[in-house]
Amino acid sequence: MAGKIDRAKYGMCLGTSVVVNLLLVVYLVVGEKWKLSWSIRAAEEAEDVAAQPCSGHGRAYLDGLVVHGKPVCECNTCFAGPDCSQFSPACPADVDSGNPLFLEPYWMQHAAKGAVVVAGWHRMSYAFNDHSIISEELEKHIRKLHERVGNAVTEGRFIVFGVGSTQLLNVAVHALSNSSSPAGVVATIPFYPAYKSQTNFFRSMDYKFVGDTSMWKNTSDVNMNMIEFVTSPNNPDGQLKKAVLRGSSVKTIHDHAYYWPHFTAIPAPADEDLMLFTLSKLTGHAGSRFGWALIKDEEVYERMLKYTDQISFGVSHDTQLIALQQLKAIFQGNNGSDIFEFGFTTMRKRWEILSKALSESNRFSIQKIEPQFCTFYQQLRGPSPAYAWLKCERDEEEDCYEVLRENGIISRRGSVYGAERRYVRLSLIKTQDDFDLLMLRFNSLLSQENFYGIETIM
Amino acid sequence: MAGKIDRAKYGMCLGTSVVVNLLLVVYLVVGEKWKLSWSIRAAEEAEDVAAQPCSGHGRAYLDGLVVHGKPVCECNTCFAGPDCSQFSPACPADVDSGNPLFLEPYWMQHAAKGAVVVAGWHRMSYAFNDHSIISEELEKHIRKLHERVGNAVTEGRFIVFGVGSTQLLNVAVHALSNSSSPAGVVATIPFYPAYKSQTNFFRSMDYKFVGDTSMWKNTSDVNMNMIEFVTSPNNPDGQLKKAVLRGSSVKTIHDHAYYWPHFTAIPAPADEDLMLFTLSKLTGHAGSRFGWALIKDEEVYERMLKYTDQISFGVSHDTQLIALQQLKAIFQGNNGSDIFEFGFTTMRKRWEILSKALSESNRFSIQKIEPQFCTFYQQLRGPSPAYAWLKCERDEEEDCYEVLRENGIISRRGSVYGAERRYVRLSLIKTQDDFDLLMLRFNSLLSQENFYGIETIM
Repeated sequence: MAGKIDRAKYGMCLGTSVVVNLLLVVYLVVGEKWKLSWSIRAAEEAEDVAAQPCSGHGRAYLDGLVVHGKPVCECNTCFAGPDCSQFSPACPADVDSGNPLFLEPYWMQHAAKGAVVVAGWHRMSYAFNDHSIISEELEKHIRKLHERVGNAVTEGRFIVFGVGSTQLLNVAVHALSNSSSPAGVVATIPFYPAYKSQTNFFRSMDYKFVGDTSMWKNTSDVNMNMIEFVTSPNNPDGQLKKAVLRGSSVKTIHDHAYYWPHFTAIPAPADEDLMLFTLSKLTGHAGSRFGWALIKDEEVYERMLKYTDQISFGVSHDTQLIALQQLKAIFQGNNGSDIFEFGFTTMRKRWEILSKALSESNRFSIQKIEPQFCTFYQQLRGPSPAYAWLKCERDEEEDCYEVLRENGIISRRGSVYGAERRYVRLSLIKTQDDFDLLMLRFNSLLSQENFYGIETIM
Repeated sequence: MAGKIDRAKYGMCLGTSVVVNLLLVVYLVVGEKWKLSWSIRAAEEAEDVAAQPCSGHGRAYLDGLVVHGKPVCECNTCFAGPDCSQFSPACPADVDSGNPLFLEPYWMQHAAKGAVVVAGWHRMSYAFNDHSIISEELEKHIRKLHERVGNAVTEGRFIVFGVGSTQLLNVAVHALSNSSSPAGVVATIPFYPAYKSQTNFFRSMDYKFVGDTSMWKNTSDVNMNMIEFVTSPNNPDGQLKKAVLRGSSVKTIHDHAYYWPHFTAIPAPADEDLMLFTLSKLTGHAGSRFGWALIKDEEVYERMLKYTDQISFGVSHDTQLIALQQLKAIFQGNNGSDIFEFGFTTMRKRWEILSKALSESNRFSIQKIEPQFCTFYQQLRGPSPAYAWLKCERDEEEDCYEVLRENGIISRRGSVYGAERRYVRLSLIKTQDDFDLLMLRFNSLLSQENFYGIETIM
């Protein structure tokens, strides 16, 4: 009897154990991770680096320094130490550059969607199989995204890729200045400085920068072909802009780098002859150097394509692959809504905080942007610009950059944009740390104002 | 008794089963593959695409077309069908482009070493943390590789990265033409056509292409600053070259794209003022668009850096990461020998086959390259050039391109390199399929010669 019970017990245990064995073996054989082979080394390396703890104030990179076998954390501004946990209280808030790091947390939160494995033999040729230098799949996804967001008409448009939209600025100027006499290139103050610096850089016989658009309003008087840069929303002030010059001798380049729901209401799809966009301000990947142009005229398209081909044989195939994955990732997020949700929420909040802090100030003011109906959100929405265009209002504070610098804020001088020294640009698209520090410095600056204000009354 | 034996048997079985369970669990918990998380999706996707069977005459890419859920094979020239197994017998051998696909099998054979996982948040900023646009680690590896190969002095040299060495051609011309009068740019026929086309492209007031070097040998007579392009080994003819012009008003750009053991003996490390290199002809990754310049003079370096910054904010961070991994992979292969072993063996064999086939011909000849002592291999070695520079010897066959074209070979016209129409360039660095087809067409062409030769004698 005892023997039977024992056998039954043993039998049950053995049976369970064998079943567990089988399940484990099945899991190992068909389990997802089991399938991988040549990509494992690279995957482990990337995950090891990503797992490096940097206190939320930095991150380690795969091509960063390695010390004692450990990847080194690269810290946000004003943070230091092996894990970026040491804050330097005297460090100034640096809101100079347009580094779109506000989107970094989005990609960290969606790590699986954003990852790409590049094989060692990925598209080693100069051209794609159709002899083009443009990835067909990437082009398709770009068109699809514009349609989804409703920010640009792509039908009947040609597409050219560039090493950032930066490269495309000169590519476009070159393509539009196809005439016997040199074209005059203009932009409306305040304007993004690369329009001028790049146009003059090559000292070309075909084009030159000739200043602010307002000086050239009556082009009928001028015997010169004109190329007008129109930036909408504008960098630095976030306003939606239209071309100023009119006439048959005028061509326009519409820089729509910031025409995405993160930064502005989308009143209608842009429908101009030559429009520039960039991955930098869409997904935040400024370091990938990827931009594109939508072009109506075939001849202009051919000239632009020839330029990118001549000067660099187009854009890195690795970058094109990675850009494609990033666009695919966007579509996986609630059919292309969630990155804009993240971007808009972040930018809107920052703008509200800054606006509120400055609302009582007589010393500083920022641009007003009217709420507008947004076709993407199908509702009226408030401003969420990439930059604050700040003015020092006091008569004696003519050099606004210096005023801020003395108070621990590194801004970008208004003169860089062709404007008065009373203006500076504050970047709101950097890391949360950068924004928080900006507000810390600003609040302390504003409390001085209140303090002295009270003093004066007393 | 029977019960005891049963219990012992059961006990043994159960024990074994439990031990197996434990081993499996331990394997699952600490096993390599178990560690992965966010990279799995990307890794699986890449491996799925790579596993697509394309008969050895093609490959599927991660950003290629997908039909019915299956990645589409992109076939080598003259192959077609869903798995690239269909050869088109009438298809011409296309040896026009300089696509360095002879190295593709190297990377397929070393899949694990070549793979890179790019995280969605990889270096999103415009600049690296030190505000540079140049990856410090990549720069280090480039210097280390030159030292290992012994093909260039890097000590005391500055490094600038470009979108391929293609971009750096104009970057260098711009940097060296820093004077009040326009500089004259020259190269020695036969020369790589981009020197001329790129220099003239911008119609700059600072430089212009003024032809073959031989026309400018007595620069002391000329009141013009001169910039000489020196390509060594030369494209198209594979000869090691030295600068021709001398004098204080002469500056040189040494294009060393092919100065690697794949293509030439390395007699000594190159030690010139401004030297250009490219990943394309080192690892075969032409599609990555990555090149670098080694520069002696700090002012020239600063001007070159400013150009790349101004025009494109440098080179894609993704590309820089991938280039770094490729250089690391090279060092993992027998301390940086095996890629050159692979490259040299492949190129040497192709050259021997072509030379042998042409050795009896009176109709066609190719360049002679003398065996030279190679410091990398520490021995005398025969030629293994990237291109054959073919001459049609018959008086009546002036247009060599047409002669070959009529016989199913697409070459590149000698006139593209400023040479006579009697010359064409045949690319020997494409796929094995391309080379095999070239030899098939050539052998048939040469057998005509033999046939008619015999006929004439008869």
